[in-house]
Amino acid sequence: MTNVAIIGATGYGGVELIRLLQTHPSVRLSFLSSETYAGQRVCDVYPHLAASETVLQKLDPAAVAECDFALLAVPAGTSMDVVPQLLEAGTRVVDVSPDFRLRDASLYPRWYNLDHKCPELLEQAVFGVPELHREPIKSARLVAAPGCYTTGALLALAPLLADKLIDPSDIIVDGKSGLSGVGRTALQLPYHYPEANEDAAAYAVTGHRHAPEMLQELRLLTESKVGITFTPHLVPMTRGILLTMYVKPLADVGAGDLRAALQRRYADEPFVRVLPDDQWPHTKWAAGTNLCFLAAGADQASGRAVVVSAVDNLGKGMAGQMVQCLNLMLGVDETSALHAQAVHP
Amino acid sequence: MTNVAIIGATGYGGVELIRLLQTHPSVRLSFLSSETYAGQRVCDVYPHLAASETVLQKLDPAAVAECDFALLAVPAGTSMDVVPQLLEAGTRVVDVSPDFRLRDASLYPRWYNLDHKCPELLEQAVFGVPELHREPIKSARLVAAPGCYTTGALLALAPLLADKLIDPSDIIVDGKSGLSGVGRTALQLPYHYPEANEDAAAYAVTGHRHAPEMLQELRLLTESKVGITFTPHLVPMTRGILLTMYVKPLADVGAGDLRAALQRRYADEPFVRVLPDDQWPHTKWAAGTNLCFLAAGADQASGRAVVVSAVDNLGKGMAGQMVQCLNLMLGVDETSALHAQAVHP
Amino acid sequence: MTNVAIIGATGYGGVELIRLLQTHPSVRLSFLSSETYAGQRVCDVYPHLAASETVLQKLDPAAVAECDFALLAVPAGTSMDVVPQLLEAGTRVVDVSPDFRLRDASLYPRWYNLDHKCPELLEQAVFGVPELHREPIKSARLVAAPGCYTTGALLALAPLLADKLIDPSDIIVDGKSGLSGVGRTALQLPYHYPEANEDAAAYAVTGHRHAPEMLQELRLLTESKVGITFTPHLVPMTRGILLTMYVKPLADVGAGDLRAALQRRYADEPFVRVLPDDQWPHTKWAAGTNLCFLAAGADQASGRAVVVSAVDNLGKGMAGQMVQCLNLMLGVDETSALHAQAVHP
Amino acid sequence: MTNVAIIGATGYGGVELIRLLQTHPSVRLSFLSSETYAGQRVCDVYPHLAASETVLQKLDPAAVAECDFALLAVPAGTSMDVVPQLLEAGTRVVDVSPDFRLRDASLYPRWYNLDHKCPELLEQAVFGVPELHREPIKSARLVAAPGCYTTGALLALAPLLADKLIDPSDIIVDGKSGLSGVGRTALQLPYHYPEANEDAAAYAVTGHRHAPEMLQELRLLTESKVGITFTPHLVPMTRGILLTMYVKPLADVGAGDLRAALQRRYADEPFVRVLPDDQWPHTKWAAGTNLCFLAAGADQASGRAVVVSAVDNLGKGMAGQMVQCLNLMLGVDETSALHAQAVHP
Repeated sequence: MTNVAIIGATGYGGVELIRLLQTHPSVRLSFLSSETYAGQRVCDVYPHLAASETVLQKLDPAAVAECDFALLAVPAGTSMDVVPQLLEAGTRVVDVSPDFRLRDASLYPRWYNLDHKCPELLEQAVFGVPELHREPIKSARLVAAPGCYTTGALLALAPLLADKLIDPSDIIVDGKSGLSGVGRTALQLPYHYPEANEDAAAYAVTGHRHAPEMLQELRLLTESKVGITFTPHLVPMTRGILLTMYVKPLADVGAGDLRAALQRRYADEPFVRVLPDDQWPHTKWAAGTNLCFLAAGADQASGRAVVVSAVDNLGKGMAGQMVQCLNLMLGVDETSALHAQAVHP
Repeated sequence: MTNVAIIGATGYGGVELIRLLQTHPSVRLSFLSSETYAGQRVCDVYPHLAASETVLQKLDPAAVAECDFALLAVPAGTSMDVVPQLLEAGTRVVDVSPDFRLRDASLYPRWYNLDHKCPELLEQAVFGVPELHREPIKSARLVAAPGCYTTGALLALAPLLADKLIDPSDIIVDGKSGLSGVGRTALQLPYHYPEANEDAAAYAVTGHRHAPEMLQELRLLTESKVGITFTPHLVPMTRGILLTMYVKPLADVGAGDLRAALQRRYADEPFVRVLPDDQWPHTKWAAGTNLCFLAAGADQASGRAVVVSAVDNLGKGMAGQMVQCLNLMLGVDETSALHAQAVHP
Repeated sequence: MTNVAIIGATGYGGVELIRLLQTHPSVRLSFLSSETYAGQRVCDVYPHLAASETVLQKLDPAAVAECDFALLAVPAGTSMDVVPQLLEAGTRVVDVSPDFRLRDASLYPRWYNLDHKCPELLEQAVFGVPELHREPIKSARLVAAPGCYTTGALLALAPLLADKLIDPSDIIVDGKSGLSGVGRTALQLPYHYPEANEDAAAYAVTGHRHAPEMLQELRLLTESKVGITFTPHLVPMTRGILLTMYVKPLADVGAGDLRAALQRRYADEPFVRVLPDDQWPHTKWAAGTNLCFLAAGADQASGRAVVVSAVDNLGKGMAGQMVQCLNLMLGVDETSALHAQAVHP
Repeated sequence: MTNVAIIGATGYGGVELIRLLQTHPSVRLSFLSSETYAGQRVCDVYPHLAASETVLQKLDPAAVAECDFALLAVPAGTSMDVVPQLLEAGTRVVDVSPDFRLRDASLYPRWYNLDHKCPELLEQAVFGVPELHREPIKSARLVAAPGCYTTGALLALAPLLADKLIDPSDIIVDGKSGLSGVGRTALQLPYHYPEANEDAAAYAVTGHRHAPEMLQELRLLTESKVGITFTPHLVPMTRGILLTMYVKPLADVGAGDLRAALQRRYADEPFVRVLPDDQWPHTKWAAGTNLCFLAAGADQASGRAVVVSAVDNLGKGMAGQMVQCLNLMLGVDETSALHAQAVHP
């Protein structure tokens, strides 16, 4: 059994990690940290986890460093404080905070309003999308798992760029997210039930923090200039992210070519499902799972093609993907603890 | 008092017309038709309208023709059966079915799977967006009110095209609609509560019926080629349509120019509200009203600008706009019966 | 025009008062107070009220005292600070806080954790349910409008007790409320969208603050001992309260007798609708209105009868009823500004 | 591996059985029937079950009879047609239809509008609540799994009646159910998203079909007369049933005694969680699981006690409980395939 720590165990990402890893055949949850609930048991905070009597602790890097792996689900700025010490101690890290996602340290002041404390580690961080970076993840010491929007966008767009089927300079990503994406501690007016229910709106239109990481990763796939316009929206549901992407197929490329490229690329992937012609993803299909559903079709008249992806923002968009990375790093079956199908309806 | 008939009075559009017109100072509801509930009173079908004891009747063109105005909220193919007779009798018509929206009769077989029965009337039908066609509506005998998506898109895009601020050939419209848009009689699996709740998905990706009318109207505003990619989505709420539009500003045009153009164009319009910089519309703000909220901003890096509109699909997107047209045709205050503000939250 | 002040104008009750009173033919909103948003305009806080440019002010009793009426929608403990001064200045008051609902000042420490500062005023406060206390309200200087649960329960139970049809000692009230009942400033975890959505739960099972006022008012209607068990629940919707009441009909009293008593009692009431046999209220029918829907039926086998009421917690359960009281105090048509029907669906 | 058939595999109960049994270590799904979708694969009907390529078949009793077990999730009247043949062939049956729940055949015409075709089998049917009938279930040939409301009520009330803590003659059960309880094929207006969303209402107030089975089972636990008043409600969520029960503790019985009785009774039960003082169940905690959460408290003033239960109507209220029964009949670990915790939030 491998000893694993979860840092930020009582947030929505953390509790999802607990749910998944409790069923993992080769993982022992050895350390669960929570700044807010330290001293309480998991089941005191989450009565639905009645059997989880582990006592939550304040983040203690020395204690975490005794674990083989640390999974970090914390806000920006926390991971960079503890990861250097963990790596030094030999603890391998999967971090879903933004702290190690961006290779260019100079982007942190602009997007996260903080200076990076260990920019030298950015280079060794592996971007945590197994479908794109499987081999480096296996041997990584530090994996930076991407944001939820980023995952859904990359899985859809990467094969199309890699196969030179679409124009990299003019990509539009329209995202619709459920409210769990805002996190458990964001007790703010826009997420108050009476405000968020029966409402849809765009937010962060002039620049969402997931945009630079999308851009960074897509640039790795093409030598041409990449241009993305990304607009996220909140829609009144708890889980799920639907991304509708508008792309320009290059000359002689049809919708069928896009779909074929996706199918070819993901034929052997356990967590990506490419839909047949004229079937489009529903976020409900991915809820509670590590699955990503993809579809592509063309709008002949305008010359644009439409590509749609659906993931659970806390599943493949967060905790599920972290576990998938952990499995690769552990060298166990990549699908361990990730077999769940959506609870329907 | 003007005698007004509502055809299709028990659908969601019809019952909204009843709600609005019951408070109209110069309208008497003289004839309410319902094929399903003929013989019952309105209050038998809708207990919340306890005071509405009018008995619903089967559609009887002769009886309708005795009214001064007929408002039609019926499925495709019904209006073309009765409108000729009504016009001949001198009854003026506001029709929110698609039957008289498209000027080109040859589009009906393709989009609605039916041949038009009175194509000669298409030319005299006035497209029912008061902000774009106020004068012709005033004297029209036949107004074709647009679809809900179309209204939200036109109000946002028309000033930008008219002022030559954006490239007409590359417009993307991403729509998010509440479920009331599917109507009251569409008792189908995707709209069954357990299926639609906690789900978001695109539909009609390869071609929605509102696309040709959007195209037709936008073409009137520019001499250049118009290209639109329109993808509608259902999100789990009852009312509201949010449209996120991605446009290409022409050289030297900034986000401020787009916003200024909208503000200039709608400064005196009672039902269009253009938001200040970095405030974005919420569908909830428009719920139950005839309002349209607009905002525009630019994404500097990609060169794209984002324009967002929010309307109530049954308000400015349907019944509210029909009443606004009726007011113009009657020569009364354009805002009669349309003063309601959103019930919040 | 009568000058009216709204204290607590930016809470959900306050904004509903603004919405209603803006259409009132004999009211001028002269003073709007908000501790949080003082200095901003209403439309800055609530963009959907774009035309409301009144600047919000800190609560200034001297300024309020210049108004003819003050409507208070504030938390417990605030009204008792300002009402004495207002009454002294001749300003008549409708207060929807609990400060003047309970006649027994000794209940305040227990239920609201505060000592009453002006217990001498409790006696002159009139309980603000027009259907039960119309005449005293007309001439009242101080009206204490009841809580939302209380209104729905009293309207259902009062006629049955008054007519001696049910056993007063064994009444069960099971309440289901939408989330707007918690208020706009209660940004707490249970009301965070991801927590409240897709969930139903009881709360305050061992004692809700509306219980003592229900008890007080029902005791006025019978000489026998009154016993109520009241359990409120939150269900995932924004507006509406449904109360299911289980009562014991006295000997020889049938379900039809209960219904007949309700129908008789409310035949001339503009805002109470008693439903026919086997039709049961939906909260949606009352949304955004001042209506209360009532129904009664019997469960023969158990000997219990079931009585159900539906109100909008912010309508007849709060702001609507306050306006109804104001109308009575003003001597104008009791339905002024209260004609709205539910926006459906 | 045991061969298991699911009859009614594409309804909400059926698809939940598929989800659970696909992970069962000793079950092979050998036959899946669906009248509507015969000839299609499971994944054609439910794209989220992409790996389920089993072809659905029309119900063929001879084919089912080749399986060791048959799980029936069908409407009233179907099971009685096929179960005799299955039992004769030695196939053991877990039936969640009402066909074998009621021991008194004369109740079927009244409650289900049909005459029972094999009343002689009613006696050998074991009522399928493992916590109450574990031993008989183990050896049963025919298990009649109860309705969802019934399960939640029995688990709460049985220990209190068995321990003679409450008055059996005056029990009130107020139920709040999510919409998945109406089933996948009930495409009716009240379950249409725009109607059901933002609404709460009682239904079947004068008699719900689960009432007679509740009564039957509670009668087995006491020699006194049992009287239940049961009122179900629909609230706008997909999954979950919350039951609030109002009971009369007998002399000298306090809330603590009720809670203690529940805790004692369920101390070793894997799927029943009794909450501590002043913690109350949330339906969300049970979603997607086979858990039942229970709590009890007393309202001192009225002399009533309140007992609350929460289950997932498709989990412990349906498919989960069927699998639990199957496990007992198979002689395997009772929790096989039932380890899931709620997906939160």
